[in-house]
Amino acid sequence: MRTSIATVCLSGSLTDKLQACADAGFDGVEIMDTDLTVSYESPEEIRALCQRLGLRIDLFQPFRDFEGVSEELLAENLRRAEAKFQLMNRLGAETILVCSNAGTATVDDDAVVAQQLAALADLAAGYGIRIAYEALAWGRYVNDYRHAWRLVQLADRPNLGTCLDSFHILARGHDPAEIEHIDGEKIFFLQLADAPQLDMDVLSWSRHHRLFPGEGSFDLSGFLTHVLKAGYTGPLSLEVFNDTFRQTDVTSTAAHARRSLTWLADRASAANGWSTDRLPSAQSPRSVDFVEITGSDLGAADETLDQLGFTFRGKHRTKQVRLWTLGSTRIILNEQSQQPAPHLSAIGLLVDDAGQALARGAALGAPVVFRRTYAGDHELRALGAPDGTVIYFNDAPAEDTWVTEFEGGQAAVESSHAVDHINLSYRWHEFEETVLFFHSVLGLQAQTPENVPSPQGLVRSQVMRTADATVRLPLNLAPPTAPLPPRHIAVTCTDILELARRAQERGLRFLSIPDNYYADLHARFGLDEDYLSQLKTLNLLYDRDADGEFIHFYTPTIGGLFLEMVQRTGTYDGYGAANAPVRLAAQRRQLRPLR
Amino acid sequence: MRTSIATVCLSGSLTDKLQACADAGFDGVEIMDTDLTVSYESPEEIRALCQRLGLRIDLFQPFRDFEGVSEELLAENLRRAEAKFQLMNRLGAETILVCSNAGTATVDDDAVVAQQLAALADLAAGYGIRIAYEALAWGRYVNDYRHAWRLVQLADRPNLGTCLDSFHILARGHDPAEIEHIDGEKIFFLQLADAPQLDMDVLSWSRHHRLFPGEGSFDLSGFLTHVLKAGYTGPLSLEVFNDTFRQTDVTSTAAHARRSLTWLADRASAANGWSTDRLPSAQSPRSVDFVEITGSDLGAADETLDQLGFTFRGKHRTKQVRLWTLGSTRIILNEQSQQPAPHLSAIGLLVDDAGQALARGAALGAPVVFRRTYAGDHELRALGAPDGTVIYFNDAPAEDTWVTEFEGGQAAVESSHAVDHINLSYRWHEFEETVLFFHSVLGLQAQTPENVPSPQGLVRSQVMRTADATVRLPLNLAPPTAPLPPRHIAVTCTDILELARRAQERGLRFLSIPDNYYADLHARFGLDEDYLSQLKTLNLLYDRDADGEFIHFYTPTIGGLFLEMVQRTGTYDGYGAANAPVRLAAQRRQLRPLR
Repeated sequence: MRTSIATVCLSGSLTDKLQACADAGFDGVEIMDTDLTVSYESPEEIRALCQRLGLRIDLFQPFRDFEGVSEELLAENLRRAEAKFQLMNRLGAETILVCSNAGTATVDDDAVVAQQLAALADLAAGYGIRIAYEALAWGRYVNDYRHAWRLVQLADRPNLGTCLDSFHILARGHDPAEIEHIDGEKIFFLQLADAPQLDMDVLSWSRHHRLFPGEGSFDLSGFLTHVLKAGYTGPLSLEVFNDTFRQTDVTSTAAHARRSLTWLADRASAANGWSTDRLPSAQSPRSVDFVEITGSDLGAADETLDQLGFTFRGKHRTKQVRLWTLGSTRIILNEQSQQPAPHLSAIGLLVDDAGQALARGAALGAPVVFRRTYAGDHELRALGAPDGTVIYFNDAPAEDTWVTEFEGGQAAVESSHAVDHINLSYRWHEFEETVLFFHSVLGLQAQTPENVPSPQGLVRSQVMRTADATVRLPLNLAPPTAPLPPRHIAVTCTDILELARRAQERGLRFLSIPDNYYADLHARFGLDEDYLSQLKTLNLLYDRDADGEFIHFYTPTIGGLFLEMVQRTGTYDGYGAANAPVRLAAQRRQLRPLR
Repeated sequence: MRTSIATVCLSGSLTDKLQACADAGFDGVEIMDTDLTVSYESPEEIRALCQRLGLRIDLFQPFRDFEGVSEELLAENLRRAEAKFQLMNRLGAETILVCSNAGTATVDDDAVVAQQLAALADLAAGYGIRIAYEALAWGRYVNDYRHAWRLVQLADRPNLGTCLDSFHILARGHDPAEIEHIDGEKIFFLQLADAPQLDMDVLSWSRHHRLFPGEGSFDLSGFLTHVLKAGYTGPLSLEVFNDTFRQTDVTSTAAHARRSLTWLADRASAANGWSTDRLPSAQSPRSVDFVEITGSDLGAADETLDQLGFTFRGKHRTKQVRLWTLGSTRIILNEQSQQPAPHLSAIGLLVDDAGQALARGAALGAPVVFRRTYAGDHELRALGAPDGTVIYFNDAPAEDTWVTEFEGGQAAVESSHAVDHINLSYRWHEFEETVLFFHSVLGLQAQTPENVPSPQGLVRSQVMRTADATVRLPLNLAPPTAPLPPRHIAVTCTDILELARRAQERGLRFLSIPDNYYADLHARFGLDEDYLSQLKTLNLLYDRDADGEFIHFYTPTIGGLFLEMVQRTGTYDGYGAANAPVRLAAQRRQLRPLR
């Protein structure tokens, strides 16, 4: 399937955008009129640049406020249009998007409007140009794709067709199934955008909050299916107005955009049993194979892991790397780094087929990460997430493969401890790309986001997890002016009071929780005084819902990360979000000088 | 009038917030339950700190989801409440905010709900606590202040009253006039928040987009009048949930918040002819007295001003300062600076009474700026705007006062040139505070904002101007990741073609405008080829609406600023917003290396 993207999705000058689109592997572009207007390159230069880059100019857009007007204004609008047709001939663009009139329309008469569209098409024909007429969701009289299609049929000109935009159709809640009644050859263009479900005016929603496919709430796979079943054979093109993507690095945003189309085409093909545009199947992670912490001196991490009851399993036979385990939780400490601050650098995932997982990621444009493998060492393959975190794939039991490379440590101790979740944090402009990465590459599902107050602003929290909830990644989005919150690894246990007591005996200094928190716990849950006092002594946090309880504690922060031990009872399915403000305030206090 | 503020409005720890509230001159605070919960200080310490700082704890808040529940849940809710009453006794807080139930209500029966509120009040009475019951805009059954008041009347307890929140009332479009029917003594608390008029769900609007009074669209002066006429004598308290203010510096945000209440109290008193809480009257600027450019070497500015036809009026007799004029436009070049980059550092305004203007600003918390004045020099007094730009006030003709201090230059040349507007740019988190400053101190009115696309994201543009439009300040808000756009001074002329030609002859290199812009102008306006070619040769920009035309050009950027010459015909009242993307793209190109 051919792919295209509107230049308005991206930051930079028009030539920056075109270069980035070509680098990302798009087949074509929609050139936004304003992007050309502010550009110093002539239309001929842009045409030649696109030719060199292998980009087809699939669409020139938009032409606004044309139809449903007085005779006098029609003449003026035809003059305006002709000037743009001349420009398009210089540019080598053959199709123009005409949006339904949202500003100057005064005539709500389909026969008149169709006549006016026919006149425009006849004028365009002289320049070899096709008109793709689209119903804007906020068009004055025409704001439904079915109405736009009726007008195209009424006007009945070979070079007049319709343009479908998923946003304008799905945001209004119009049934996309009727797209199948449109003659596929008359669908001149297809624009795709996702969006979060927001309850706000459709114009602001469209102009500021669109997302790339896979990042929002729209069923774009179903939408695309209807369009393809109608017989559409043109490109899949992205038109995403988003305040963030207009600012982010043009090269990485174009790659991010391209990934969304690869994912979408696969989804639609999979849903319909088509063999084209298929990706290697998503390998839903079975469990966390390991987590890697990197830094130039990880002594503090060794000490903390020991205090928590982890077993030191030894040093890697060829690398400056150590392994600690607790039940199935494996933490690798990697001191082969120039970056001094300890940070969560990699996650290993157990999958059914590591080769497929890698191939899928690579097909979705994720970089395959090189890892030096010595003779006799088990080879683990990995991908780079958008922020540089490395994601390894293993499809064999760790204890039988790479774990055997560690020497000089203690024997494994059997226990039920496992990774509960891994909390990752991101800057505000890295978020959507990360959500799409985990969703498209690993098949993780995004849960409903929450906002957590911190002393430095609201932190947005969005959990991504497998359908069976065995692998869970809460993502935290830092407010723009705040430092990145630390990441953390949460490990399950069955008797957290006992574990915490033993950790305390071994010298662990817990993240200190204020007394007021326990007064609030008492008020909220009416916990038994004795139990409450145990929680307080050990700096444990508590949450409860109808399904069960969640009891947990945090270690102090080591560089950019910390650990959390958690106990779940019943079928409690959250992450103690009510306690997150306490943690964020406590961590900030830990990091700043006392006043 | 006493002033108060909810701690949730501000960033930082609870002790940071309290210190900032005291510094800003608030009389009291509303302590947010969560702010106390995450705090390490005991309730007794917070109480003692508030006492030392002279802050009364006016309210403890919120208590949620109490009423309209089953008997069983009621018992649990009373237990929850009692724990908070005990906490309030330790804290020394006497009033608690109880919001209408938005989560657990199942009983929509006023008699039952009133009984439950009465039970709560009776329990509170034992602790000497008053209940202020408030209708949330999204309460399940109670979401109208009149309904909350009926329930308070039905329950009929001396320590049960209502809390009014401007947001919950005005966002729902409920008529605030009926507040006057409430017994003033039963209005236990008043929360004030402004907001922009947004078309979105009321919960998100409330939680993220509230503003301080004077920054949004609500008629808070009218609202406050109704409350005061009802006989309310408690504090005016701010409760503003805003994603930005939660991040900005706590001290400056508290001062900003305090200014909004001073302004509001004055407005309400003025509207009602009351003599209390009045400020010195706003001195609407008559015209721009001067603009000052500061930098360590302003030779490039001298050259540009000369090329534009400004007259060099000489050097100041005591300072490293030069004066250039064009008609009534006076530009001061100030080289007394350690900051090398030229920047727009000060604006002088002609007002009727400079002393009043200064006194009003000072009463609104704006810092009075010290300026060294030598013997015989005219004394100009000034205030600092939130971003540090200095605002001078003069109430005598410049040519008769400070202009005479400049020596060795040419004589003034009579002409009609004047300052058309001054465009100021701000970082995203400085914006609301700046809007409030210009609105409250100078009485400028905010126009409807626009979004202008730039290569680095959307720039928000908001014009502030006098009612008669003689002094106009378009404010530009930079996207978070983009550098601050340069500021500029726009000067009127009557024959811009002639002025541009002469400037070109004198060697001015205009900001270069792309040819594609002229092709677009041709398409949009069908301008005469000859005229269009003149515009193109001189890099002039053009706009037109039903009222007239706007023709303008830009100089290249000098440090952080540039100049614009403009010609208006008819009654065109805009600023050429359609041309702003061209300027922003051209300026970015000027600043970055060619690829």
